[in-house]
This record gives sequence, C-alpha cells and structure tokens, in this order.
Amino acid sequence: MAKSWATLPGAGPSGTGVDLHIDLRETAARSGSGVRRALTDALREAVRGGRLVPGTRLPSSRTLAVDLGVARNTVADAYADLVAEGWLTARQGSGTRVAERAVSRPAAPPPPPRTPGPARHDLLPGSPDLSAFPRAAWLRAARKAVAAAPNEAFGYGDPRGRVELRTALADYLARARGVYADPDRIVVCAGAAHGLQLLAGVLREGRGGSPSVAVESYGLDVHRELLTAAGLRTPPLPYDEQGTRTDALPRLRPDAVLLTPAHQFPLGVALPPERRAETVDWARRGGGLIVEDDYDGEFRYDRQSVGALQGLDPERVVYLGTASKSLAPGLRLGWLVLPARLAADVARGKGPSDWACGALDQLTLAEFLTSGAYDRHVRACRLRYRRRRDQLVAALAERVPQVSVSGIAAGLHAVLELPAGAEQSAIRAAAWQGLTLLGLDRFRHPDVPRTDRAALVVGYGTPPDHGWAGALDALCEALAAVLAETP
Amino acid sequence: MAKSWATLPGAGPSGTGVDLHIDLRETAARSGSGVRRALTDALREAVRGGRLVPGTRLPSSRTLAVDLGVARNTVADAYADLVAEGWLTARQGSGTRVAERAVSRPAAPPPPPRTPGPARHDLLPGSPDLSAFPRAAWLRAARKAVAAAPNEAFGYGDPRGRVELRTALADYLARARGVYADPDRIVVCAGAAHGLQLLAGVLREGRGGSPSVAVESYGLDVHRELLTAAGLRTPPLPYDEQGTRTDALPRLRPDAVLLTPAHQFPLGVALPPERRAETVDWARRGGGLIVEDDYDGEFRYDRQSVGALQGLDPERVVYLGTASKSLAPGLRLGWLVLPARLAADVARGKGPSDWACGALDQLTLAEFLTSGAYDRHVRACRLRYRRRRDQLVAALAERVPQVSVSGIAAGLHAVLELPAGAEQSAIRAAAWQGLTLLGLDRFRHPDVPRTDRAALVVGYGTPPDHGWAGALDALCEALAAVLAETP
Repeated sequence: MAKSWATLPGAGPSGTGVDLHIDLRETAARSGSGVRRALTDALREAVRGGRLVPGTRLPSSRTLAVDLGVARNTVADAYADLVAEGWLTARQGSGTRVAERAVSRPAAPPPPPRTPGPARHDLLPGSPDLSAFPRAAWLRAARKAVAAAPNEAFGYGDPRGRVELRTALADYLARARGVYADPDRIVVCAGAAHGLQLLAGVLREGRGGSPSVAVESYGLDVHRELLTAAGLRTPPLPYDEQGTRTDALPRLRPDAVLLTPAHQFPLGVALPPERRAETVDWARRGGGLIVEDDYDGEFRYDRQSVGALQGLDPERVVYLGTASKSLAPGLRLGWLVLPARLAADVARGKGPSDWACGALDQLTLAEFLTSGAYDRHVRACRLRYRRRRDQLVAALAERVPQVSVSGIAAGLHAVLELPAGAEQSAIRAAAWQGLTLLGLDRFRHPDVPRTDRAALVVGYGTPPDHGWAGALDALCEALAAVLAETP
Repeated sequence: MAKSWATLPGAGPSGTGVDLHIDLRETAARSGSGVRRALTDALREAVRGGRLVPGTRLPSSRTLAVDLGVARNTVADAYADLVAEGWLTARQGSGTRVAERAVSRPAAPPPPPRTPGPARHDLLPGSPDLSAFPRAAWLRAARKAVAAAPNEAFGYGDPRGRVELRTALADYLARARGVYADPDRIVVCAGAAHGLQLLAGVLREGRGGSPSVAVESYGLDVHRELLTAAGLRTPPLPYDEQGTRTDALPRLRPDAVLLTPAHQFPLGVALPPERRAETVDWARRGGGLIVEDDYDGEFRYDRQSVGALQGLDPERVVYLGTASKSLAPGLRLGWLVLPARLAADVARGKGPSDWACGALDQLTLAEFLTSGAYDRHVRACRLRYRRRRDQLVAALAERVPQVSVSGIAAGLHAVLELPAGAEQSAIRAAAWQGLTLLGLDRFRHPDVPRTDRAALVVGYGTPPDHGWAGALDALCEALAAVLAETP
C-alpha cells in the first residue's frame, strides 16, 4: 500500500500537529478522483473535524508537496480549491491559513422515525402482497419502454403525465372498468391521496368560503385528514346495511362527495344501483361533484366487477384510480379521470413543483398495460386473493363459527363481526399472537358516534404467500381466545 | 370471422332498432375478457351513445341468447352486471329496461395545452442533452436494483425516501461536493422545485407573519413564483460584477436566502469566498437559513468544482441538489440535505399525499451511484459540454467577435453580452433562424429595475449532439444579423 503521510501544524490529539493521511492507491482506485481531490478532502476534513483550528498557518505548497511526495501544483491547486470554498484564506505575505470563522460541528442527526417492532404477522388492510410484485415482467416492460422512449421523455414533461400512459389508461379503464376516459381528461398522480390533494386544491380555489366534501361514515382516515388539512369540511354521510345513505346528500348540500362505490372501504358492500343513480341525480340537480375512489375495483370474486360509477356521468364524476393495490404502493402511481371542465384546472394545480411522477415508471406502466402484462398480473392476483379469501372463510367457519364475515365479494380485506365490546380485546389478543390487526372503529369518522358494533378489518391480501397460513392461524387463535372469554 | 349480430328494440339511425355487434373472435383474443364482458360493453355503449334510449325494454335473456348464439346465462349475467352499475333496471313483471335517468353524453375534451411549434434548434438554458441519457447503464442498474430490492421496498415507504438512496447520496455528496450529508438529514424529492416547495411550507409554518426568502436579482422565475405562491416574500439581493451582494443581508433581514453559490444562475459567476463566509456569518448571527441551490455543481471545467457552501455550516445551510442536470429532468428526482432541526419537519411536510418518488427509480439511482456509473456518466458529460463550450467560444470569436461570453467556467449555459437594446432583436433574429433563445431580462426579479444591459442566456447543453453544430451556426447567423443592424 503506497501511503503518504504528512504532519501539519495544528491541534492534534497530542497537541503536536495533524497527521494528514492520504492513501494514494485507494484514491487512484476511486473513479475519477485523483491526488488533488484526496488532498482537498483530507484538508477539509481536518478543518471540519477541528484538527486544524482557525488561524492556523499551513505549510507552503512546496513544503507540503515534498512531505507528501506529490507535485507542488497539486498542493497549490488543493489550497486554491479550499480558498474558493471558504475553508482557507490566502493573503499576500501571510501565507495560507485556516479561515477565521470556526466551522461549526454539525449537530447529531435526528433519530430515525420510530417504527413498531416487527410483528411476525400482519393483516393490516390497504396493501397488496408485496412479494407478488411482478419484478421480471416489470423489468421486461421497462427495457422495452426505455429503449423506445423518445428523447423528450427524459425532459420536463406535461404536468398531466406522459401521453403514452394516459392513452394506455384510457383504453384499459374503458375496457376493464367502464370508465369514459379520454387521454386528455386523465392526470397521472403519485397515488390516490395525491390525486385527492390535487382535487382539494381545485375545490378550494373554485368555491367560495370553506367547501365541503361529504365522506362515508367509515373510511380512510388519511383521506379525511388530507381534506381537512386542505381547509375543506368533511361532513359524514349516514349508512345502513346496504351501504352509504346517499339520500342524505340533498340535506347535507356538500360541494362534493367522496365514495367507494365498487367496494366500500372498509365495510365492503357495493353501492346499490338505485343509490348510484340517486347520487348522479343529486350531482346533476345541484352541480355537485362525485369523487369515486376505485381503489380495488379490479378485484371482484363473485361475478364480473361492478363497472365504475363514472360511466354514468363523466361530467359529474371524478374517477380516482391507483396502482397501489393492483401492483405496488411503492410505484407511487395513480390517476384521475376528470370532467372536461376540471382537467385543465387540476393540471395547472400540479404546477412546476409537482411534476411528481418519474417518466420512466410512467412509460413502463404504459407498456405493461398495452402488452397485456397488467391484465395477466391482475388475473393471477385475483386467483391468489380469492383462494386466501376462501381459506379465511373456511378457517373461521371451522374454528370460530360465531364470527361472521362480510365484505368479501371483492377486494383485499374482510370485515369480521365480533360480539359487542370485543374489538379491542381481539386486537390485544392478536398482538399476543404476534399479529397486527386493525379494528373497524379505527376508520370511524370522528363526528359519527361510537356504536357497540365490534369488528375487525382484516387485510388478507397483505402477507406474503409463505406467511399467509401462519397469519391465518394466529388470527383464529386470537379470536378463539377472545370468544372463550366473552360471555 | 365469427361475428354475431342481434337487433334490439330502440332508436337506431333508421328508427328500426339497434344492431348489437359482437365479434366473438376479437373478444376471445382479448386477454381475459369473454363473451359476457363483450356483451356488457356493447350494451353499455349502446345506452351511453343514445342508441338505446331510457325506458326501452330489452328482449328477454332467452331471446337475445338465441339471436346471438350464446348461452342464456351469459346474457342474464350481462344484464345483471348492467343493473348493478345502474344502466339497466330489472323489475318483476316489467322485464329489463334501460334505466330512466338519461345518461349524459360527455362534453368534448378540453383542447390539449398549446405547445410552441417545433423550432429546429433550441438553446434554452436549464436542460441537459436529453439524448445523452445513459439508457443502457440505467437499465443495468434498474435490473440489479429491482432484483435486490427487499419486498418492503414495494410498499408505502419512508417519506424521506429510500434509505439505500439516502445512503448513496450521503457518500457521493460528501465525496464530490464536500457536503456534510448524513442519510438521516436527506429528504428525497421530485426535483429542486419540489424541494423548495417543501422548504417553503416549513418556513411558513415555523415563522410568524409572512416570512421572506431573499433571492438573487437574476434567477429562476419558477423558484420565485413558487415561493410567492406559498405566501413568502422574495426581496431581491443586489449584485455586482463579482456576483450577489450578500452584504445586503443584514439590511434586508430575510428569514432565509436562496443562492446559487457554485455557478450563479443565470449570470454564471461563482460566489467569492468572502461572500460565502459573509453569508454564513449572517446566518449564524441572526438565525437565518441559507438555501444552496447546487443545480449544476458537477459541471465545472476550469478547475476542480467549487465545493458546496453547505460544508461550512450544515446547521445553517439547506443543500438542494437534483438529477435534472446531471441525468435527466424526466426522472423527477432531487434531494435536500437539511439541518438536523429541519429534517423531521420537512419529512412531516411531505405527508401521506407526497410520497412522491417511485421506489424503483430511487433504488436504481442508488445502484447507479454506488456502482460508479454516475461518476462515469458525469465525467463523460463534462467532456462533452466542455467541448461544446469551447466550440461556442471559438465560433463567436471568429464570427461575431463583438460578442463577449461570460459565465463559462462551469455549467451548461453561457451569457452572451450584446450591445445595449439588442436583446429582443437578437431573440427575434434567432427565431427567424428557427432557433429558440432566452434573454437575460427574462430572469430579472420583477422588483429589480430594467437596465440597458442586453444579453442572451444560451443553454449549450440542450441540443442533441447531431443538432449542436446547426444550433451554433444559427446562433452565429442571428447574432451577425443583429450586430450588422446595431449602430
């Protein structure tokens, strides 16, 4: 190892000076950085670390060059670099010195955000099986998409997203979800929450005062909180066993309503046809906007999927879709299909700071859709999740027959009804089994009174295949334990 | 071709009925969709398009099945699907009818945003040569990164971005830019503007009233407008031939200052060492924040790059970096290196709707950095851009020696000084040559008085290699024409 050492004046640990250590072999191996860079780094580090204190005079470049066995120009250049950066000062007659302003030591970094300890099993709703991400097929699509991309795809793009993806989505959504989707009405966003955020901005700008978006009594807290943070009110719609009571819309008179018509989250029912119609009628009469969150519309097991509400009136309904359930949340890709009058407003709202989605992922998803890989993947997932659903129902029927299951015609989660008051104890019993679960109450709108209904929202799509049997077993164990204690 | 036809009652063009046309071969070829899906689609389209008017009674499933030559259950299922979606109604004794609410025809889509007609040449500043994107190397890194990714990478992630990328950036930024960059202080964002937006949010929350961010007299309008839109004031700092006059900070007393120290945009000078020091002193005395926009710090030609100001005081300086110049804007990847006290605030500000960057691109960039591919790419680009700069300087010296060039020690753009008053006529003359250009005045802060200084900001990095010679020739032609007319 060809190492070079030099001792500089300064405040070393022993008070005798600073050892400047440069490993020439290592620095030569570093791509593109030479001795000059290494020397600059070493000197900067010595100042930063306090080993070279402010005011210290450095040896002349000639002296240091001899000590280190490097060219004098290399040292002179390194000095000049550090003068330009403000670490050193050079004055005629005074030589090169460490700059007078003490370089502050950076504070300790903040601790990383706390994450819960790793549970062995996880049946939280809201995530697909991440181990099922089609890595090979995705890479094949990426290879094709990147090779075929025009150069301008790598530049600053249309805030609505790549036209290739919007075209592929328009075709797919019309075919698979009955959505009326012209590419010019589509805005690509970084997931459903981002899409909702963009819409909230447009609603706030477009309506005076504090606009309101009616939401379902039980729903995703993240969406509610996002609307509230954007300055919107979120009055809850009542519900009954058939689903959300859309007949309350004329009384509540919101500016918009956020619904999950295909598969209510978390209760799992599909909005009945007459309520779909009622909602569209309300929107037409009063100019209201319907936001259709179609988060898991692709996964329906009992029959062909219920088409999107948007098809009934594309000028009154915003369709909100996402790749987070069908592919992976990590892609951060979602899409809005907008009434014509809103498409430009939302694109404008995205603005220069919000061309959020990488072009390469967009092009890859476009290729994934048009090649049929998306359909194949969704079909394979549907089989996999359906099998799990059937196993869940069978296991519960056998081991805890008192627990009834609902919301299972579609999607990646089920609602398990428990005896009144047993929700929290079931969650605790599950934690005892190393299983993370959420109860229904977690999704209750804060303005909706707590009831004595006790239920769990079980995301059976979440575990990897190899963890599914264990998670299901832990769930049954926990439920059996709780039911044994419940009178 | 096995086609099936049926004639339904309704309002066809001839008033005689609706031809329902199903191409069985085509539908079978469609992945996963069968006859039932095709029939559902055809019926829905007939209602949507007004060919089946509200109230129309459909034939019984038995009759239609015979007409189409399909199983009766297929028709019954398709009817049931459309009832569930609200297109049809089914009543005991009344048969299946088209639902009464008229389905509204969607309005014509909005016209796509207007884009300027394609100029033959483009020397706009702010973009690298998009044709130089290292597609093959990027795909190699993507393959490796996707194969190696843990399953959780495909899930909802840390709002700060993937730890693999933050770690790789910390190492790279310390090595190449002298940045003190702990991974816990880094927040990945979707480009510099997004990073600035996040910072603006934190500044607005953290300080009372209407906080101010001092900006340079000439700078990126997008950044200024973004700060203004976020409710921040943006007083301009004066400048002289050495660059931005940081001695005005104590007088202006802003909450923060946004600078481009390594290579002022657009004027092209590097902030002198004593002004770097002065800025840090100001920040320390008054608690101000320095935002260092290091947009093209990697491209310096005359000497080793000027290290980042951030290294002088990591607790007072926010370092803002981007892949938009070194790789491609289309990636939408940038990074903030933050003082410890701000890192958590900014991550919180990203929130649930702003996990904006796809995990796969982040993992790919991490692999690209750690494998040395990034260094190799930057080095190759530096040679390419340096060659262009030299050609620009040589061509101007030969063909329009009256034009002086500045700001060329670094970066992807140069400032060409013109005779007073000639800026707009040069831009027009360039347009005549099919060349798109921007003048210096375009970047002037609105509060800074217009001067008679005339200059062009020429982005010589922008054209593809094959377009460079033509763009340079068009530039020289345009300048020669303007100078011939200028007294």
